[in-house]
Amino acid sequence: MQIEIINGPNLNLLGTRQPEIYGHHTFEDYILRLKNEHPLINLVYYQSNIEGELIDRLQQCEANGIILNAGAYTHTSIAIADAIATISVPVIEVHISNVWKRESFRHHSFLSPYCAGVIAGFGLESYRLALLYFLQKLSQ
Amino acid sequence: MQIEIINGPNLNLLGTRQPEIYGHHTFEDYILRLKNEHPLINLVYYQSNIEGELIDRLQQCEANGIILNAGAYTHTSIAIADAIATISVPVIEVHISNVWKRESFRHHSFLSPYCAGVIAGFGLESYRLALLYFLQKLSQ
Amino acid sequence: MQIEIINGPNLNLLGTRQPEIYGHHTFEDYILRLKNEHPLINLVYYQSNIEGELIDRLQQCEANGIILNAGAYTHTSIAIADAIATISVPVIEVHISNVWKRESFRHHSFLSPYCAGVIAGFGLESYRLALLYFLQKLSQ
Amino acid sequence: MQIEIINGPNLNLLGTRQPEIYGHHTFEDYILRLKNEHPLINLVYYQSNIEGELIDRLQQCEANGIILNAGAYTHTSIAIADAIATISVPVIEVHISNVWKRESFRHHSFLSPYCAGVIAGFGLESYRLALLYFLQKLSQ
Amino acid sequence: MQIEIINGPNLNLLGTRQPEIYGHHTFEDYILRLKNEHPLINLVYYQSNIEGELIDRLQQCEANGIILNAGAYTHTSIAIADAIATISVPVIEVHISNVWKRESFRHHSFLSPYCAGVIAGFGLESYRLALLYFLQKLSQ
Amino acid sequence: MQIEIINGPNLNLLGTRQPEIYGHHTFEDYILRLKNEHPLINLVYYQSNIEGELIDRLQQCEANGIILNAGAYTHTSIAIADAIATISVPVIEVHISNVWKRESFRHHSFLSPYCAGVIAGFGLESYRLALLYFLQKLSQ
Amino acid sequence: MQIEIINGPNLNLLGTRQPEIYGHHTFEDYILRLKNEHPLINLVYYQSNIEGELIDRLQQCEANGIILNAGAYTHTSIAIADAIATISVPVIEVHISNVWKRESFRHHSFLSPYCAGVIAGFGLESYRLALLYFLQKLSQ
Amino acid sequence: MQIEIINGPNLNLLGTRQPEIYGHHTFEDYILRLKNEHPLINLVYYQSNIEGELIDRLQQCEANGIILNAGAYTHTSIAIADAIATISVPVIEVHISNVWKRESFRHHSFLSPYCAGVIAGFGLESYRLALLYFLQKLSQ
Amino acid sequence: MQIEIINGPNLNLLGTRQPEIYGHHTFEDYILRLKNEHPLINLVYYQSNIEGELIDRLQQCEANGIILNAGAYTHTSIAIADAIATISVPVIEVHISNVWKRESFRHHSFLSPYCAGVIAGFGLESYRLALLYFLQKLSQ
Amino acid sequence: MQIEIINGPNLNLLGTRQPEIYGHHTFEDYILRLKNEHPLINLVYYQSNIEGELIDRLQQCEANGIILNAGAYTHTSIAIADAIATISVPVIEVHISNVWKRESFRHHSFLSPYCAGVIAGFGLESYRLALLYFLQKLSQ
Amino acid sequence: MQIEIINGPNLNLLGTRQPEIYGHHTFEDYILRLKNEHPLINLVYYQSNIEGELIDRLQQCEANGIILNAGAYTHTSIAIADAIATISVPVIEVHISNVWKRESFRHHSFLSPYCAGVIAGFGLESYRLALLYFLQKLSQ
Amino acid sequence: MQIEIINGPNLNLLGTRQPEIYGHHTFEDYILRLKNEHPLINLVYYQSNIEGELIDRLQQCEANGIILNAGAYTHTSIAIADAIATISVPVIEVHISNVWKRESFRHHSFLSPYCAGVIAGFGLESYRLALLYFLQKLSQ
Repeated sequence: MQIEIINGPNLNLLGTRQPEIYGHHTFEDYILRLKNEHPLINLVYYQSNIEGELIDRLQQCEANGIILNAGAYTHTSIAIADAIATISVPVIEVHISNVWKRESFRHHSFLSPYCAGVIAGFGLESYRLALLYFLQKLSQ
Repeated sequence: MQIEIINGPNLNLLGTRQPEIYGHHTFEDYILRLKNEHPLINLVYYQSNIEGELIDRLQQCEANGIILNAGAYTHTSIAIADAIATISVPVIEVHISNVWKRESFRHHSFLSPYCAGVIAGFGLESYRLALLYFLQKLSQ
Repeated sequence: MQIEIINGPNLNLLGTRQPEIYGHHTFEDYILRLKNEHPLINLVYYQSNIEGELIDRLQQCEANGIILNAGAYTHTSIAIADAIATISVPVIEVHISNVWKRESFRHHSFLSPYCAGVIAGFGLESYRLALLYFLQKLSQ
Repeated sequence: MQIEIINGPNLNLLGTRQPEIYGHHTFEDYILRLKNEHPLINLVYYQSNIEGELIDRLQQCEANGIILNAGAYTHTSIAIADAIATISVPVIEVHISNVWKRESFRHHSFLSPYCAGVIAGFGLESYRLALLYFLQKLSQ
Repeated sequence: MQIEIINGPNLNLLGTRQPEIYGHHTFEDYILRLKNEHPLINLVYYQSNIEGELIDRLQQCEANGIILNAGAYTHTSIAIADAIATISVPVIEVHISNVWKRESFRHHSFLSPYCAGVIAGFGLESYRLALLYFLQKLSQ
Repeated sequence: MQIEIINGPNLNLLGTRQPEIYGHHTFEDYILRLKNEHPLINLVYYQSNIEGELIDRLQQCEANGIILNAGAYTHTSIAIADAIATISVPVIEVHISNVWKRESFRHHSFLSPYCAGVIAGFGLESYRLALLYFLQKLSQ
Repeated sequence: MQIEIINGPNLNLLGTRQPEIYGHHTFEDYILRLKNEHPLINLVYYQSNIEGELIDRLQQCEANGIILNAGAYTHTSIAIADAIATISVPVIEVHISNVWKRESFRHHSFLSPYCAGVIAGFGLESYRLALLYFLQKLSQ
Repeated sequence: MQIEIINGPNLNLLGTRQPEIYGHHTFEDYILRLKNEHPLINLVYYQSNIEGELIDRLQQCEANGIILNAGAYTHTSIAIADAIATISVPVIEVHISNVWKRESFRHHSFLSPYCAGVIAGFGLESYRLALLYFLQKLSQ
Repeated sequence: MQIEIINGPNLNLLGTRQPEIYGHHTFEDYILRLKNEHPLINLVYYQSNIEGELIDRLQQCEANGIILNAGAYTHTSIAIADAIATISVPVIEVHISNVWKRESFRHHSFLSPYCAGVIAGFGLESYRLALLYFLQKLSQ
Repeated sequence: MQIEIINGPNLNLLGTRQPEIYGHHTFEDYILRLKNEHPLINLVYYQSNIEGELIDRLQQCEANGIILNAGAYTHTSIAIADAIATISVPVIEVHISNVWKRESFRHHSFLSPYCAGVIAGFGLESYRLALLYFLQKLSQ
Repeated sequence: MQIEIINGPNLNLLGTRQPEIYGHHTFEDYILRLKNEHPLINLVYYQSNIEGELIDRLQQCEANGIILNAGAYTHTSIAIADAIATISVPVIEVHISNVWKRESFRHHSFLSPYCAGVIAGFGLESYRLALLYFLQKLSQ
Repeated sequence: MQIEIINGPNLNLLGTRQPEIYGHHTFEDYILRLKNEHPLINLVYYQSNIEGELIDRLQQCEANGIILNAGAYTHTSIAIADAIATISVPVIEVHISNVWKRESFRHHSFLSPYCAGVIAGFGLESYRLALLYFLQKLSQ
């Protein structure tokens, strides 16, 4: 079973900037930890700051499930929403912070209506919960 | 460790009505299944159709964590939001359906800014993911 | 054949307050008159000022039709709308006054899209017209 | 006693087009049926696709009551609303479909504040209910 | 010199209905009075309740100036606005009542940006002031 | 002379939660203090978290004046507004905090247009000022 | 094969007014040119300034396709939209000018959702492109 | 008979700046011309750039009528609107330019609902028309 | 102890105009009455129709508390709000009428978020309640 | 003569995904067919999922005309609109689906005001119609 | 060369109040410093809290350039905007704070469209940058 | 000291297109001129049409200050705003044109709240003023 985690803009800086919002762990540390916990899952990680490259990746993805944190593009990109709607791999939208505690322009997501579900506000644990869902779902 | 699941209006009909949106399982079956899976957790369940009774319950709750599906009151009740803000027990907002796939008046939640996090769209699994989060968090 | 009339908040004061809007008849007088006119119909009446009790009643109702005047909850309650959508008994929304002649916040109804039809502005006659519709419909 | 039914744009096609919304009966059949049921009432019928002709007719109408289905002009015509406000014959606004189940631009009516009452969503029965109201009212 | 007064929907009832808003004079009396005061002007009067007939008339008008009270179409008709923009005869928009004292949907005029000027609120005197303007302007 | 103080949702927690907004005094202490200051007034106190129970209480109230802090229902309840409009006892709307310093959804009150007056932002002193007004008014 | 071109308000003035927006050709010249180019097509032309007459014509049309330029009614007429939705002849919406370069009230069309497609901004060529589409489509 | 013309901000520059909007005549020239035409009227003129001084003047005015061009304060000043509502002298709102041809923030007037009428778009002739109205009205 | 009452535009006419809204007492009478009741307080009164003069006064005020009725500037003046925010003397916003019973543009106050509290709707008693608050507060 | 077709995000999947909206043909097949039909035209094709690459291409394009389907960027990209405005090659905006039949966020195009014209809703024929327009235009 | 700095409401308190937003320097100190740095420029300074006096000053100004910080009037005064549009001296709009970091009602400026440019957020340096621009511009 | 100038989409065409808005100088000429004037500053220049590449560059930038003209992305990119908020290098937002004189969608900037300050409308001088600010600031 292959699960792909796709991160959008500025999430490459995780753990080095704005720890009051996003926490102190780098994403690489975190992926390693998830891999150790779930050695049987092929966990793939991709990050880009470029909207169109995220679309390219979503289109080409052959995993059993995608965990997507599209960062700020969540709120502005109909094109990523279209990519999610177009592909057949199920996508879970995750956010590290509770977006509804922040600026009002972060309260709307173009992606949510096309995703299997949304998990937000649990820090890096948001990704783990999404992974657990796929494990449960795909093991049925 | 005690976790309380609080369900709002119309969720007492779960499994008997509108299965295309909410699935075929009754909530009682589901709670039983969760209890079997996690015998060490004291899992308490409460449901009411009355907004003020949900507030009463939130105020009196002495659990380590609350999993709240306030149903339609999610979108209209500042009073429940105030109750969440007032108490010190962490609350996770869950939804069975993906609310952003439905009518636009279901896209806004008065509760989200006051909750620890939000999990929506995974059917009854939304509750389990919330439970897993509390397990992970509280075991630290 | 059983028809249930359900009245929401402040309609218990009918006939004693604000007669310029709601008329001079108490609802009890009116129900009696309807019963006399239609002795073969089992006409049930329920009133509550509590939103959740109205939901309870809608869920438990076993009549052939419901005539609902949800009063001010018409304009604010998604939870009652959900209850109407969930049950299989047809519901007719009635209003005593012509709500569109009044404040703009009374022009929108959360309930209408889920009701069989809407009758408004005919004073207490609005209930009778709803009753006549059910008689006609159910006699076919 | 004379009652006039006035139908607006596209209602001349009733029974021949879009039966999933408006039903399978032509309006002529329906008027005949109403006349048979109420032989003592002088039931007059008028239809036009032209907004101004509807206004002309409303101004000239000498019936005891008007049952008006202004079709799409309901949502766009202040001029018809003015005509209703200007004349002294009482007007009941009717709709065949439940307009609040349809596109949002059909949820607002310029006419309602000037009408005696509104009946919507009962198919062709909406007209009959309006007629019954006039019978009841005028027989007092 | 020829001046044409064009009146829109429901203004044919002037003096017979709603005198509290529009006054007690019929328009025919008023036109006669204006003609007597200005015998050298060829004063033409046209009224229609049909939007498209008002457009026809505007297009065919060969007067030196048009005094237009488009009634309720003022607030809804882009088509009349286009007609005004298309013709070369100057048009003055007049209103009998002070439209800004009335419902908010009467506060916006599609016509004003294409008219030479606007005169509103002076009762039937609004027409006379428009006429005086044309007299002054055309006599230069 | 009887004055009734009615408090809405979450105000039962006063003095125990969120002291930075609502202060450190419990409401029971405060009522006692008011009673001591005004021994001749029959000061009645009622609190409920349930919207409909507040309506019940307003309807049944036989005091000379009501001091109402409807809490979060201030911003969402047309039903309470209707109750205030229906009864003849004068109601003063009070708020402990300055609601206009808080979230924008707290800036609108459905109740204000139906109340005798509004007093907000003075902490628990808001209630005392309302009481002083009634004393002054009723002693005239 | 019969194709009908229907033009709405003020388009009868084409070629004589506002050439900076609509060009210098009269529509009659243009129709002649189209007929010469496509002698095998029965090309019918209709124009009216009256909204309801356009509806009449759409209802009675027996062509294989309709090319409709509803002029200003495009932006205000739900009634014409209903007529298009009701008939089975496919309708192409055309505009001579690029409506999105003009006033914002011209950016919305009530008709587009019910039309087969939209062609706008190509001057009179917009009609020819619509005709070419029907030729291609109907020849298959 | 005394008529007072009151001009608001920037109108002191009339005739010297932006002639493409406001024309080439200075207001002093214009007042002189009006006085010559109507020697029997006591025509008083006042101008200020200060909102509060305009209010002072309105309050103290003892003329039979006021012709007010409040300039930009038309669109922002509730205080001037209150002054007009408070005094008993009738006020006519005038504008030199057609304000609806200009920026959208000039389309709304706080003053219009409180004025006897509005005249706009006729250049300096707007004042003269207002004067003629007062002459006609006051001579009755 | 010095308390300053500052009144804004049109409040100089109090007691002489619009008594149905503002009552029959002149403000001077009222101030005298307040002074008699509280001889130990140095009660200062200032009124201006000019927004900037109110700002000047607020900046220079050396009282222990300010009672401010900014009249219509309440709804339009960010500059007065800034003055209140800048000075250290506490300001209570008062209104004679219940502003939420009046036009919707009177429902929003730029000042409220910067004031200690708001008292509205009690007629001239609003000022006295504010004074009583300062007495209570400053005597502690 | 050279014509360039530029396709935006997700259009590379045409013919393989969501055929109910976009049809069953791959774009490569279609281009081939167009080339066969018009052997004398140099038809160039470019696709990218990256907004900035579409801008690069538009800037560098040396064709006689551009047929642009910017996909979802149509609704969000001011930057592409600026590129169209900046270059001198005429651009026709095309859409395969009738965008006004879909979600409301697809009804607005940032590009339309800067394009020569818009063709939408004809499936892949939309491109051919654009090509025919350029052929006609450029052959003059 | 003469440059005039005009400051609006509450800026006279600069350096004495709210230093966390506006800094600790008084404006007089700052002007002195600027004069010392640029001894050849005739630097004039004017401040008023009165909107109309700022308009008076702008109208009478004979400098080569104006540096205007209109304070809160920036967001509410069309009258000042008109004054800027009317005069021929170029005006630079400056703000000490970054207005877009503050309340949303400070994000809109009526003045910007009529100013040569805008400089905001650099503390008192905003004025110096404006001065440097004028020096550069005027020395060409 | 190193200062980086980063330009967004379409600014690579500066000096070759739309000179009426952006002027006739190419940006390369201008950078050269700035370098000559400030030989001690290490002035770095970067331009991209790709939103994500601008984010990459902002993240990697090690200058003492950034002068950013994000072009059209200013109005649509939350992702760039996030990048500015994340990095510690101060960013000044500059615009060549006065964006508030242009289309309303250019009046809002997602970037401004995260920038040190904003300079707009001075042509290429906007960049120089930003540079002068950094010189002044960093030399302290």
